[in-house]
Amino acid sequence: MGILVVGSVALDSIKTPFEARDDILGGSATYFSIAASYFTDVGMVAVIGEDFPQAYIDFFREKGIETTGLQRKPGKTFRWKGEYKADMNMRTTLDTQLNVFADFNPELSPAYRKQRYLFLGNIDPDLQYSVLEQMDNPEFVACDTMNIWIENNRESLLKTLKKIDLLVINDEEAWMLADCSNILPAAKKILAMGPKRLVIKRGEYGAVLFGPRTVFSVPSFPVENVVDPTGAGDSFAGGLVGYLANVAMDDEISMRKAVVYGSVMASFNISDFGAQRLGELTFTEIEKRYREFCKITLFEDFNKKDGYTFDLLP
Amino acid sequence: MGILVVGSVALDSIKTPFEARDDILGGSATYFSIAASYFTDVGMVAVIGEDFPQAYIDFFREKGIETTGLQRKPGKTFRWKGEYKADMNMRTTLDTQLNVFADFNPELSPAYRKQRYLFLGNIDPDLQYSVLEQMDNPEFVACDTMNIWIENNRESLLKTLKKIDLLVINDEEAWMLADCSNILPAAKKILAMGPKRLVIKRGEYGAVLFGPRTVFSVPSFPVENVVDPTGAGDSFAGGLVGYLANVAMDDEISMRKAVVYGSVMASFNISDFGAQRLGELTFTEIEKRYREFCKITLFEDFNKKDGYTFDLLP
Repeated sequence: MGILVVGSVALDSIKTPFEARDDILGGSATYFSIAASYFTDVGMVAVIGEDFPQAYIDFFREKGIETTGLQRKPGKTFRWKGEYKADMNMRTTLDTQLNVFADFNPELSPAYRKQRYLFLGNIDPDLQYSVLEQMDNPEFVACDTMNIWIENNRESLLKTLKKIDLLVINDEEAWMLADCSNILPAAKKILAMGPKRLVIKRGEYGAVLFGPRTVFSVPSFPVENVVDPTGAGDSFAGGLVGYLANVAMDDEISMRKAVVYGSVMASFNISDFGAQRLGELTFTEIEKRYREFCKITLFEDFNKKDGYTFDLLP
Repeated sequence: MGILVVGSVALDSIKTPFEARDDILGGSATYFSIAASYFTDVGMVAVIGEDFPQAYIDFFREKGIETTGLQRKPGKTFRWKGEYKADMNMRTTLDTQLNVFADFNPELSPAYRKQRYLFLGNIDPDLQYSVLEQMDNPEFVACDTMNIWIENNRESLLKTLKKIDLLVINDEEAWMLADCSNILPAAKKILAMGPKRLVIKRGEYGAVLFGPRTVFSVPSFPVENVVDPTGAGDSFAGGLVGYLANVAMDDEISMRKAVVYGSVMASFNISDFGAQRLGELTFTEIEKRYREFCKITLFEDFNKKDGYTFDLLP
């Protein structure tokens, strides 16, 4: 096992202008794990209810995802219901039922504590911190969060941020966390909170990676038919951390490639409902799209000796 | 002279959350010409009123811009007044006074008709077409437009689009022109209208170039202090067409580099009021930022033999 992920496993009901699906497999740990499974072994810590279909667990196992940390508890599985408007950029949450997720309190097995890579999916920062405390000195920790935690549990979040290698959040979350909506000063403020690196996800506009004196910007892959954007951010994180665990490096060029692999996984994910497309990929398809990312971004041979560092960030 | 530009020269009054300026040098032909002047010779066709300060004309000449096509007419100069809100992304037009610009009817001198590069700034498509008709078989024609022309003079615009090499518009204009807000299908629809290539400008999210079976996406340069976004689009076009005229090529790699030089010029332009910063650049600064664009976008050595073409566009 290479990566441990802690997050939600859910049953989602999704409505788009074109179609609707009920009770499909969702949740941050789900999307992350499936995306990461193409790059390395993944173990999942999450909670499900009595109603969670065995077929979905079988599917995780088919993808090689280790599910001993997926606890089944009395009650119903976490449910989320959302709707996308015409341009797929705005989504409305219609209903959230925490169910068994309300009492989620992840306890890691001895084997899980020894994992080298950890992804803290979007859950209460207190739980994220508790997981971090249980780990036995991991090599690389990445973390996601969201508006409600930034607003309501900022202190715990800040405590966690001091101990992580990478924060992966979207632009609105970044503006809220930094209290600033210009990306460069916002990134500086967030890096000053502790994480070694920061990725700001910008949906159809791509993603930007900030590190010590480096900025790396990658566009999203232009997708002809966006069917369902749910899980794009977690697929992105799964591809990103999955690639890093695979190469076992965290230098600047590996981080950049990882961000591109994250963008690759997100671009596949949005082209069908739920994790449908994400779950049926081949590594050949992933590599092909990675090369296409080269094709849509390259404009110059660049002398590597000059490096990537420059004076944009202090 | 390398490029002929037809467009507006204006006196702008600009208000931002931090500062306001009155009657500063503005207009599409102004920003375009200054940006392009770093790369090649530029001749300007525009109209000004009796109130237009001689100092601004002297400034054009200092930048090596040929102003025999800048006609002074009885009356006042075109005036635009606008305001930017806190995040600098939304602007409101407070007042537009066409003045002498209302009767603008560009007639080209014999020397102007022979120019090899032409930029049709954002003016009535009928005037753009009339300029195009006067030209003596130019090598490369780029064109801008805006919402009012797309809505109110679509037929003339479509006639012009059939005859140009490059359309440079922003995302809102692209959605309006294509009646579609997903960038890939929108680009396909617009390319089918005639232009050989299309650039969609996305402000702080960069720009995307579409050509025959190619897509190239470049982020914007992260600017710490955005002072005044006015003229960013025309500076972008000036850098782009200026570079192309300089290298006298329009192959895919030159087009891509040109889009990056356009992004370079726009990034400088927004860091001060009006064309202040744009007007005082050195080529060393421009080249330095171009290399920084390499640094913020590179993630992989890429085998050039594979080329840039792939199956994303038909």
